[in-house]
Amino acid sequence: MAVYTDVSPEALEAFLGAYDVGAATSFCGIAEGVENSNFLLRTDREGSASDFILTLYERRMNPAELPWFLGLMRHLARAGLRCPEPVAARDGALSRILNGRHAALTTFLTGLSTRSVDAAQCAAVGAAMARLHLRGAGYAPVRANALGPASWAPLLDSGSDGADRLAPGLVAEVGDAIVDVVGRWPGQGDLPRGQIHADLFPDNVFFVGDDLSGIIDFYFACSDFLAYDVAIAINAWCFTDDGVLDPALSAAMLRGYDAVRALNPAERAALPLLCQGAAIRFLLTRLYDWVHTPDDAIVTRKDPLPYLARMRCHRAITDSQVYG
Amino acid sequence: MAVYTDVSPEALEAFLGAYDVGAATSFCGIAEGVENSNFLLRTDREGSASDFILTLYERRMNPAELPWFLGLMRHLARAGLRCPEPVAARDGALSRILNGRHAALTTFLTGLSTRSVDAAQCAAVGAAMARLHLRGAGYAPVRANALGPASWAPLLDSGSDGADRLAPGLVAEVGDAIVDVVGRWPGQGDLPRGQIHADLFPDNVFFVGDDLSGIIDFYFACSDFLAYDVAIAINAWCFTDDGVLDPALSAAMLRGYDAVRALNPAERAALPLLCQGAAIRFLLTRLYDWVHTPDDAIVTRKDPLPYLARMRCHRAITDSQVYG
Repeated sequence: MAVYTDVSPEALEAFLGAYDVGAATSFCGIAEGVENSNFLLRTDREGSASDFILTLYERRMNPAELPWFLGLMRHLARAGLRCPEPVAARDGALSRILNGRHAALTTFLTGLSTRSVDAAQCAAVGAAMARLHLRGAGYAPVRANALGPASWAPLLDSGSDGADRLAPGLVAEVGDAIVDVVGRWPGQGDLPRGQIHADLFPDNVFFVGDDLSGIIDFYFACSDFLAYDVAIAINAWCFTDDGVLDPALSAAMLRGYDAVRALNPAERAALPLLCQGAAIRFLLTRLYDWVHTPDDAIVTRKDPLPYLARMRCHRAITDSQVYG
Repeated sequence: MAVYTDVSPEALEAFLGAYDVGAATSFCGIAEGVENSNFLLRTDREGSASDFILTLYERRMNPAELPWFLGLMRHLARAGLRCPEPVAARDGALSRILNGRHAALTTFLTGLSTRSVDAAQCAAVGAAMARLHLRGAGYAPVRANALGPASWAPLLDSGSDGADRLAPGLVAEVGDAIVDVVGRWPGQGDLPRGQIHADLFPDNVFFVGDDLSGIIDFYFACSDFLAYDVAIAINAWCFTDDGVLDPALSAAMLRGYDAVRALNPAERAALPLLCQGAAIRFLLTRLYDWVHTPDDAIVTRKDPLPYLARMRCHRAITDSQVYG
């Protein structure tokens, strides 16, 4: 939960003056997201499209990258993916300055995120992710994955201070795994590449009843192996609370994905390796936040250790058919 | 800002099952209010009344008092005051248990709170407060003001630890003022009594454009002198950022109030004293929170000192005509 920046009605009115969305009739900060400040805005514009999300981008967002993210969201929304669509100001800009920060208005998406993942949801997520991959193909700009394999060793370094307190031997074990996984990581041309979400966790997927109503939070999206997105989602959706892979869930996700865009044999064979990489990536960023966030900070730290368990699990899998 | 309690979609669905409001299509925690957890809920019920606020009452709420607050809100809303109306469950209950806490569903109120108070807004607040006082008359149950004069000396005691660090001599000065103000406080029958909001700050009043669209947050409401509510609102709305009374604002508020319910001569004469009491009450609760909230806590502490300045200002006023 986080609202870092306060927006006065006067500042909001001035901001909205640059858009054709009407005047605010309701405005409240929403306690979702940890990176940016988000507000739910309702305007007096006629019709159903009078709800918006206003996002103020805080410290972690590099303003130079914002056009890439907003451009991707616009491209995907216009290609029919259910995701927030940035609303352009009258001058065509997708972001403007508000309270000294870059800020964007996007359409509002109906739905609730799930907390009790089931196979039907995993299948729906797989299918939606495959649609994202296919529709992203028309978006040409490339954004390198800032949290790709090259980042892992330095990330472990910078998080190593408290790591062994968290789990004795963690630094050595993960260091060895990084060397191994990076050494075997596919080359650029080995697997199909494209735009990936790269953070497709249950928090970022909305359902209305059993129907997937949309995908949000594209601020880790990047250009990478499409199958790496699948590997991230397997880590995010297909483990029990005890940290054990639930093959029924991963099989459902792969079935859903394949029905829209079939993984090729090389992608499928790479899944155990890509899943290890994905587990390492989330283990490392959670470890970094764990070590660098004060115990009593506003933001709830996420426990890194479930991703150590996932890494071990994937490292024990030699046959990608285990995933389904 | 605060959302203390996480509500899963499953817990929400079970909770809503006891109501006739439809199923949730959107649900997010809102970063408003410091006492309770608030969520904005939209359901698939047809028509405009598909938006609700779900409130989970946290530690400071005494569950035994909840029926009084919810009953008052229902009474006022049905009497035509624009305020959140509690939605009854099918069994008629105005609150139910959710995540181990008492929780209530209320109607959603359109509007934004103002940050740049002007005379027209003060007049509107005065008029709305007078309507609240008139319409509250039909609500018979009595709730004593837990933050009335009898509470002030003990509150100063429990906040005195850090008080003199905040302003040297504060404890002695406020202690003297309390003795004086309590000694002159009106007796039960001296001024008209009724249901008062008791926390009518700009945060708790919504506007759509220049029109006052509603009053929220009745959880300090109580049965007390009606003119004490006016005194609280003068403190909350009618001072400049420098802590100086703006008589144009207080005059506008009194004009707005009088147009709906005229203050009688005794009420008007008591205003300087009641305003001192109101300044003391907010000075003391802010002081208490200041002293007892860790420096790095989630909740932003409010500076007590502007209320010391207000107290001094009101103590220097001998003629209530200064207020307008």
